Amino acid sequence: MIAAVSTVRTETEIAALMEAMGEAARAAARVLATAPAETRNRALTAAAAAIRAATAEILAANAQDVAAGRARGLTEALIDRLALTPARIEAIARAVDDIAALPDPVGSVIAEWTRPNGLRIQRVRTPLGVIGVIYESRPNVTADAGALCLKAGNACLLRGGSESFRSSQAIHRCLVAGLVAAGLPEAAIGFVPTTDREAVGLMLAMNRHLDVIVPRGGKSLVARVQTEARVPVFAHLDGNCHVYVHAGADLAKARAIVVNAKMRRTSICGAAETLLVDRDVAASHLAPLVQDLLAAGCEVRGDAAAQAVDARVRPATDADWDTEYLDAVIAVKLVDGIDEAIAHIEAHGSHHTEAIVTEDAEAARRFMAGIDSAILLHNASTQFADGGEFGMGAEIGIATGKMHARGPVGTEQLCSFKYLVFGEGQTRS
Amino acid sequence: MIAAVSTVRTETEIAALMEAMGEAARAAARVLATAPAETRNRALTAAAAAIRAATAEILAANAQDVAAGRARGLTEALIDRLALTPARIEAIARAVDDIAALPDPVGSVIAEWTRPNGLRIQRVRTPLGVIGVIYESRPNVTADAGALCLKAGNACLLRGGSESFRSSQAIHRCLVAGLVAAGLPEAAIGFVPTTDREAVGLMLAMNRHLDVIVPRGGKSLVARVQTEARVPVFAHLDGNCHVYVHAGADLAKARAIVVNAKMRRTSICGAAETLLVDRDVAASHLAPLVQDLLAAGCEVRGDAAAQAVDARVRPATDADWDTEYLDAVIAVKLVDGIDEAIAHIEAHGSHHTEAIVTEDAEAARRFMAGIDSAILLHNASTQFADGGEFGMGAEIGIATGKMHARGPVGTEQLCSFKYLVFGEGQTRS
Repeated sequence: MIAAVSTVRTETEIAALMEAMGEAARAAARVLATAPAETRNRALTAAAAAIRAATAEILAANAQDVAAGRARGLTEALIDRLALTPARIEAIARAVDDIAALPDPVGSVIAEWTRPNGLRIQRVRTPLGVIGVIYESRPNVTADAGALCLKAGNACLLRGGSESFRSSQAIHRCLVAGLVAAGLPEAAIGFVPTTDREAVGLMLAMNRHLDVIVPRGGKSLVARVQTEARVPVFAHLDGNCHVYVHAGADLAKARAIVVNAKMRRTSICGAAETLLVDRDVAASHLAPLVQDLLAAGCEVRGDAAAQAVDARVRPATDADWDTEYLDAVIAVKLVDGIDEAIAHIEAHGSHHTEAIVTEDAEAARRFMAGIDSAILLHNASTQFADGGEFGMGAEIGIATGKMHARGPVGTEQLCSFKYLVFGEGQTRS
Repeated sequence: MIAAVSTVRTETEIAALMEAMGEAARAAARVLATAPAETRNRALTAAAAAIRAATAEILAANAQDVAAGRARGLTEALIDRLALTPARIEAIARAVDDIAALPDPVGSVIAEWTRPNGLRIQRVRTPLGVIGVIYESRPNVTADAGALCLKAGNACLLRGGSESFRSSQAIHRCLVAGLVAAGLPEAAIGFVPTTDREAVGLMLAMNRHLDVIVPRGGKSLVARVQTEARVPVFAHLDGNCHVYVHAGADLAKARAIVVNAKMRRTSICGAAETLLVDRDVAASHLAPLVQDLLAAGCEVRGDAAAQAVDARVRPATDADWDTEYLDAVIAVKLVDGIDEAIAHIEAHGSHHTEAIVTEDAEAARRFMAGIDSAILLHNASTQFADGGEFGMGAEIGIATGKMHARGPVGTEQLCSFKYLVFGEGQTRS
């Protein structure tokens, strides 16, 4: 029998705990806001070293989590997400080092101009404040999220899933060791030391102590956070991404992009879920595209035209157009031109990532202007929807909201900004 | 007796009305999102012309509002805010023309870079969607807010105050005439056709139809919106702005800046409310600064040192440090160096606008980095806290929140963004 991960607490005790953690995080954020980049980076480098040095302890804690998970009947897929190895711990440490090596966003000048009266105005990045992160079974999120928030000068409050609680706690101790080594407040990276479910509800209402909440996990977690939070949220609920093969598409590019967008990795939010093919090129393009997908091991659900290509294509139902499979399944449909493609995506998409394949630049322009998604690609795979692929370095997730952050949420998106105005005694007339 | 401004409606009727207006605004926003700049500008220019052409009707509606206001015992200050003249109507029309002449934010490229794999990535501005604007007695806000939202490609839902209801409605008809002339949907600028107070509560909860709410008005309105809204808010509650005269201040600059920051206009949010003077230069700087303020007709409330300067200086109480007077009153206090100045402003300020007067560049850097306000000025008056003075053109207000918009909220801040990725067939390895 494996010990419970936290002692039972009363609701009053949990509320007091969360309030105290929120206050401590807010106070730490004030210190971080003016901590030099070298200090924040030193904390990150020291944390990475502490993670490497604590490999044995982290593995031991993880073994307890894995054993508890098996005892609770977790699927092997979930156990695999949860399980750490020395190589995975080294990857976690290296990711923290990589974040330390990123350019410092705090104080960076976004824009600068001079007014006719001689006032020089700069818009510079500043930390947002305190970020709440609520996540599920992957223990590496503890290090990734804590490090990314610290890099951007923010304090954070991490709430890990119960399955990975001991592993996350062990990794969190290493992050705190890094903070201490750099002389920064321990509360700069807080970890909720209980798996009680009330803690999540309390975080969602902590609009005095948290500036934004980032949920990392399955659809039910994200949906709950988006519905209940009284704090702004950076998240996407669905990644129902589309590839539209336009009448002006080059077939070779279309074949390469469609198979990559769907099959490179099916479990990521940028994986394509629906293929739209222009009726004008159905005769030449539809069959090779469907057959490529089938040959790659993808289940194809389609309209009548797609079904006519191959007996293995199953009929699509209305629900298929709204489904994020996150699996080797795709829905295929013919459309009558670009307007129908745009209308279909606006009606069924999730404002995440969509690609058009065409040699017609004006069609690409219309598609990219007409669809209200975070990322629009022309002649490239939807699987590029990723902060690293965008050159932003690590990201804490992809956002589909339109306020503040949209698309990959990296260090710059975890910042706010302020205006600095430099004068020589100017007064306003 | 002046007729009631709206027929009595039941709660159910108001809820249905607001839901219908929200849906219509959302649908209009989809049209606006891809309407060319020329079309949006044509609507603005036509609206300005319609306002000029309707001067007589607007004046007649305004006369009814003014008469009703006098009958209800409004103060002369409120009547002055409310009252229109041919010159004021011309100014309203000209402001709409000025907004039409601003650069188009929609589609403008914020950043652009190319990845090693050849993908070219652009971050471009897009409309936010639907903006709710809740305002009080100034009828010109109807034209300013409607025009600014339209310029940024957004639909809006305007809720004007009951005092200016008829004037706003008359101006709104001109905005709609502009939309119609340009072939844009009338619901692109919606005006809530009732003064029932329930409509405000309904707007604050309309998170499906509104993307952001901007309150324009007194503290009680803004406080209610910030507390109750289930929609993001761009606003500031207080403009408790500070001028800090550092030990390294040039006295002539300090005298010019302090009097201007306080007295140029006392009713605007960027007016200084507290003067902090470094104890090291109190002997030379305090007396002239206090006497300038008194000579300019400002009431001075101060600590013991300030009281010692002149018998007219009244004792400041603790409440004075937290008060936004919006009047010819200032609180004056000596501080022991820059750290105490920063601590005082962080403890008592409202994160709006603060100025330091000093010839010491390092002190200015510390002050501007250490204070978490939207606008920090070095050797310039706080009265420059204004979108026009920043070169942004018209603004819908100043925001002190840290999400999305901060400082002056102009056309760019009323936009979101998306990523456009241009490839030649790239797939992800």
